[in-house]
Formats: sequence, C-alpha cells, structure tokens
Amino acid sequence: MSEGVEWAVHCCLTLAWLDEDRPVPTARLAASYELPPAYLNKQLQAMVRAGILASTPGVKGGFRLARPLEKITLMDVVTAIEGPDEAFQCTEIRQRGAGVESPARGFRVPCAVTTAMRKAEMAWRRALAAQTLADVRAAADRHAPQAGESLRRWYARGSSSSPPSSPSSPSSA
Amino acid sequence: MSEGVEWAVHCCLTLAWLDEDRPVPTARLAASYELPPAYLNKQLQAMVRAGILASTPGVKGGFRLARPLEKITLMDVVTAIEGPDEAFQCTEIRQRGAGVESPARGFRVPCAVTTAMRKAEMAWRRALAAQTLADVRAAADRHAPQAGESLRRWYARGSSSSPPSSPSSPSSA
Repeated sequence: MSEGVEWAVHCCLTLAWLDEDRPVPTARLAASYELPPAYLNKQLQAMVRAGILASTPGVKGGFRLARPLEKITLMDVVTAIEGPDEAFQCTEIRQRGAGVESPARGFRVPCAVTTAMRKAEMAWRRALAAQTLADVRAAADRHAPQAGESLRRWYARGSSSSPPSSPSSPSSA
Repeated sequence: MSEGVEWAVHCCLTLAWLDEDRPVPTARLAASYELPPAYLNKQLQAMVRAGILASTPGVKGGFRLARPLEKITLMDVVTAIEGPDEAFQCTEIRQRGAGVESPARGFRVPCAVTTAMRKAEMAWRRALAAQTLADVRAAADRHAPQAGESLRRWYARGSSSSPPSSPSSPSSA
C-alpha cells in the first residue's frame, strides 16, 4: 500500500483539528508533515474526486473536508488513494495448460483460490469500513490530548514560511 | 499482491491431486499452467524456505508437499510469497514538521492511524489463517469433481513434452 493513505488520513485529521473556514493550501499541509507538495497534492486531488475533500482553486485556494470525519471511513480513504481493485488479482491460470483440455472442469463457478482469497479481503474491507476517521481522531486525542492544540499553534504562527527544521532535536520515539 | 500467490496455491493443489511419490519438476508444473518456469521456480523455492514444499535437486528432482494441505493455511502461502511485512507501512509523518516541535505529543503510543489500519490487516490475516489449502481443495473438488482426474491424465500422458497448445479452442469462461 502506498504511503498516500497515511498522508491522506493525517491531512483529514489536520483539517478537522484546524476547523478553519478558509481552505488550507497544499503547501501548508505538506509543510506540516514535511511531505513533497506536488505528490501530496496528487493524493489530495484523488480525495476530492472521491468526495472526501473539497478544493478551492486560486492563490487563496486549498482543501477542506467535504463531510465530517464521522462520515469518512478508512475504506473510503483507501479506495480513494489505492483505487477499488482487489489486492488479489486472479489471472485464471486454472484455465491454461492442463486446464485447456478440460473445458467441463467447472470454470463457470469462480476459482476456489480466488473465492478463498476474496473472503479474506472482504474481512479486511469490512474492518476498514467499520472505522471512521472520527474513531481515529478520538484515539489520537486520547493518546495525545495536546496534538490538536499544538497543530493549531503551528498553523497560526506560520504564514507561508517553511516548517521549523530541527533534525538535530529528535522527538520522543 | 503478486500473481505468485495464485501460482503457489494452484501448484500445491496440483501436487496434492497428483499424490505422487516422485517429486514433480518445475518444468511440468510450469507447463501445466503455462507459466514461465524460471519465475515459477523462484516462487516454489520461497515455498521450500517456508517449509511448505520440499525440493529434491538433480535431473529427476522437483517439488513435493512438505506437509498435508490440512496443515497449510492461505496465510502461510501469502507470507511465503509476499514476505511477513504488513501492507500498511507507517512512516511516522506525525513526528515531522509540526510534530517536531511537540515531543510530548504522545509518540510513545503507536500512531492512531497505524493502529486502525493494523486492526483491519489483522482481520485479513485472521481470515487467511482460518482457511487451509484442504478447504480450498474441497471447494475446487465440489465445483469441478473431475479436475483432479483430468490433471492426473494430463500429467500421466506427458513426459517432458510441452502442454497442448490450442489457443483457438477456448475453454468455457
């Protein structure tokens, strides 16, 4: 899975924490996590196409949540970023080689391997769909109650300045 | 997910259907599904390292199941082929940029995003671990009772000949 999913979820949490009326520019979101702006923008645009974010064009433009965190599941984000395809792609090798000769082998029913793999994938999708970003935010707020406030301070301070670069002062692991 | 998982599961089913005393060469397994022998061999070697298959070197060598299908889960095969890493890899972007300044933010507890994604991945892994290749074979035998017999005939006929190539006679979809 691409790192875009992690980026996209964190950006949604940030937009909720900031709770701004104005759209937040890609450059600010990218700076707040030290991410490459152009590549992050690509992920955010995918989130717009999925109806999770709304974008405003122009110099004062940026992104905003299109709906509340309660209405966004992890499945929504994964589908927006990774696409709807299943991880396991059956290529029907059962129908090749030895299988070519036995057309009556039962190819009308789905491959048993695919069915079994799909069963597991459905369990994954159900677990993703059962968790909203509001659940994720609640867990984050529980573990780090000051995270939202700290982020708001960071955003309030910066205009379009670059993020504080202090690689020599590692944060607690 | 790579197609190696599909190949590996089908090869295990084939070895069980054939139920041979002699090891089955890669070339035969590859021909029976029209797969590239060298690349298939790479997957089968991974299955040997995982203790799912046993290999015999030499001109009469090949592969055999190291344990019965009842003792091989889909999780075993996926781990053998894809490795043990989780699909979602947290890169801890929460600690960068705005996060750098707030070391007390609670980085000692795992990232809430990671925890949520991991929960879904565990559901997937549990569903894979709950299904053995014996279950998959039982489903395949139910849907296509003649599959094993048909495969045995194909193997009995060929020595090391290439598979029948009849691309113009499509099997039932």
